[in-house]
Amino acid sequence: MNYLAALWQCQEVSRASSPAGAVRQGSLRELNLAVVLRRIAAAADRPPSRADLAADTGLTRATVSAVVDDLIGGRLVTEAAPAPRTGAGRPARGLVLADDGPAGLGLEVNVDYLAACVVDLAGSVRHHTVRRADLRPVSPADALAQLGELAVRARADARRQGLTLAGTALGVPGLVGDGGLVRLAPNLGWREVDVPALLRRHLPPIRPVAGVPALVVDNEANLAALGELHAGTAGPHSFLHISGEVGIGAGIVLDDALFRGARGWSGEIGHIPVDPEGRPCRCGGQGCLEQYAGQEAVLAAAGLTGADLPADTAATRLTDLAAAGEPTALRALHDAGTALGVAIAAVVNLLDLDTVVLGGGYAPLTPWLRPPVLAEISRRVLTAAWSPVTVRPATLGPEAAVVGGAGSVVRQIIAEPIGWLAGRRTSWMGDPSSTSVLLPKGNDPPS
Amino acid sequence: MNYLAALWQCQEVSRASSPAGAVRQGSLRELNLAVVLRRIAAAADRPPSRADLAADTGLTRATVSAVVDDLIGGRLVTEAAPAPRTGAGRPARGLVLADDGPAGLGLEVNVDYLAACVVDLAGSVRHHTVRRADLRPVSPADALAQLGELAVRARADARRQGLTLAGTALGVPGLVGDGGLVRLAPNLGWREVDVPALLRRHLPPIRPVAGVPALVVDNEANLAALGELHAGTAGPHSFLHISGEVGIGAGIVLDDALFRGARGWSGEIGHIPVDPEGRPCRCGGQGCLEQYAGQEAVLAAAGLTGADLPADTAATRLTDLAAAGEPTALRALHDAGTALGVAIAAVVNLLDLDTVVLGGGYAPLTPWLRPPVLAEISRRVLTAAWSPVTVRPATLGPEAAVVGGAGSVVRQIIAEPIGWLAGRRTSWMGDPSSTSVLLPKGNDPPS
Repeated sequence: MNYLAALWQCQEVSRASSPAGAVRQGSLRELNLAVVLRRIAAAADRPPSRADLAADTGLTRATVSAVVDDLIGGRLVTEAAPAPRTGAGRPARGLVLADDGPAGLGLEVNVDYLAACVVDLAGSVRHHTVRRADLRPVSPADALAQLGELAVRARADARRQGLTLAGTALGVPGLVGDGGLVRLAPNLGWREVDVPALLRRHLPPIRPVAGVPALVVDNEANLAALGELHAGTAGPHSFLHISGEVGIGAGIVLDDALFRGARGWSGEIGHIPVDPEGRPCRCGGQGCLEQYAGQEAVLAAAGLTGADLPADTAATRLTDLAAAGEPTALRALHDAGTALGVAIAAVVNLLDLDTVVLGGGYAPLTPWLRPPVLAEISRRVLTAAWSPVTVRPATLGPEAAVVGGAGSVVRQIIAEPIGWLAGRRTSWMGDPSSTSVLLPKGNDPPS
Repeated sequence: MNYLAALWQCQEVSRASSPAGAVRQGSLRELNLAVVLRRIAAAADRPPSRADLAADTGLTRATVSAVVDDLIGGRLVTEAAPAPRTGAGRPARGLVLADDGPAGLGLEVNVDYLAACVVDLAGSVRHHTVRRADLRPVSPADALAQLGELAVRARADARRQGLTLAGTALGVPGLVGDGGLVRLAPNLGWREVDVPALLRRHLPPIRPVAGVPALVVDNEANLAALGELHAGTAGPHSFLHISGEVGIGAGIVLDDALFRGARGWSGEIGHIPVDPEGRPCRCGGQGCLEQYAGQEAVLAAAGLTGADLPADTAATRLTDLAAAGEPTALRALHDAGTALGVAIAAVVNLLDLDTVVLGGGYAPLTPWLRPPVLAEISRRVLTAAWSPVTVRPATLGPEAAVVGGAGSVVRQIIAEPIGWLAGRRTSWMGDPSSTSVLLPKGNDPPS
């Protein structure tokens, strides 16, 4: 974006909240809080000092000092241990994200497991629980009751560690509509399930933080893609993250942002037809990718199904058999990789992405899936000859969705810290003069 | 985008050009020029008066008057005929985009035609020529020499009408790399063709306008999608525009902007596999959509090929036969529509777009293509049951790419008028105090 376009947007946005049409100067303080916090969050090698921040941001040292005091007082930032003295004078103290401030709660219902995790401001996972269970025979109410139990325990654990939960993100393997209504989760057999209403029975709401929704329900493949994005090196990143579970979902990340589509239902790669007159799918279509490369299809092709064999055990066994060179397992993975490659070739021809991340259950299978995927890309993508596509395993693996969900909560606080700092006083949104209602150090903003 | 995010971007962008880190106040004048011009351009029913503009933008009437004077002086805006007197006092004069100011030149090389057109600031087509010819046996140098002839004539015609060409956009049915190098145009048989160098031999360059590239080479499906976007009603629009020619390309418009992909090579829908082990394609792949729904495949299936039958005549005959209910033609269109529907279902599952526009040669065939396309969407798209997809013919038809290309030139001037107004004096970019170097009325800024 060029300078004028950015200014244009400022005026557009400003006009929405103020009829005067002028750029709202009063909120520069909010901007400075966000700028400084983001620089501290982005520091790669060494915690920046106040002087480093002034040099990096172009703000005066006095402004930086005032902003840093606000951030420390609000438990968003803390001083790192002093660096060893290298010359005369007091060594500058480095600044890092606080590990006792706000945190995000991530929850997930999937076809064969439930999960909960807590991520702190620095992105560290402070709590993580997975409960394996086939959720298909369980009603949505019972599944969410079980998830509520995990959530209550995760919260208690967060509180014990001095963290304050600022919001919750819940991932489901399906299409989510307004207000967290799950319109359809074909592999769970859910239709029109009001997830927030059911979860609320088992999980008391947290005190709200301005700018952070108390509960967001999202497609698990979207949250997993966000997890992968946050786990990566500095951007900008554009990639396709494929979550290979019983269903196959994808998150499309373009220039560091999740692309959600017109109604938030993008990424249904599992229902791309790879053999249009082929096997019938649970969605009502035919020849969908899921029927050739979904977890159940692969395990069946490898002869690893049966009532006595839980899916996670079977998946581990598949990896072992493939590592041992067992021909049936190798053929099953080759065929799945070929089907996956046909769908990925369609995506790359359409979106011109240069990176494909194999996540969820696909991550440990990447050594066997990658060769046939690359073969199909090379054969079918118009630009493949001079513009190779990287296919790599996900950094986070199966926990990407819960970690990504929890991380998306704290990312919102880093992007707009004023909501957290102002506690429950949200009047700043309408009154430019009352920005930055800061709390004294040690006070707990939203509980 | 919220207010803080916009402010953040201002500061980010500003810092790139100024180490001080402050929002660059000096350029608010540039912003005001753009704001007022864009409002005039967006006026739907009635040309706005200066008072209307002040009310709409939140700027003072004095500022609006000064800005409007600058825009009139620079031949971007003109006063409409006075409205009938309705009360006491002088009636307010409405303001419209000038029809004797800057214009864009659109050019296109396609497989079986060359085209040139001129579009003025208001989006009106002021010149349009199409020359039918099979370009496949012609060398790139000869094709561009012929295109140069059309371009020279278009320029002369524009000059006769008092217009000043501000830039040129050239569409090709292929993948365009940096500097206008056509990496690959499979249906033309072009590889690594330096289009600007070849065209320059036949077309003297125009005087540059700051902010508007003198020549942009782009994929024709991208330009066609822009043409469709500009021809539409007020946005925001997100849609897939499919150009059905010998090849099949697509332009993906998301929230009023073209999505180009990581390297600008998005939209190759013609090479989405619709029958992975099916017919071999010119690209080296198998079962690509083009082999089932491209112009040649459809005409062959309808029995309308032969050396004595030019493709455009055959296409017209196909429409006539279909309208008359001839069974072979109907079957050919049904099969093409089914293949197209399989590919579109993949796109909609992936991107969650709610509108598909059938453009190029597909536009007149929409009555026969739409039913099988909708049938495949309904069968294969996960969300189709509660979230219908609109499939409609393009507004512009086969001329979309040249009109879209020429229109994209004038759109850049509307977005950032300062470059045009400043003529060739581009020092304003580095010196915030010297914004708006305006020319006296009647002076011709860049020739």
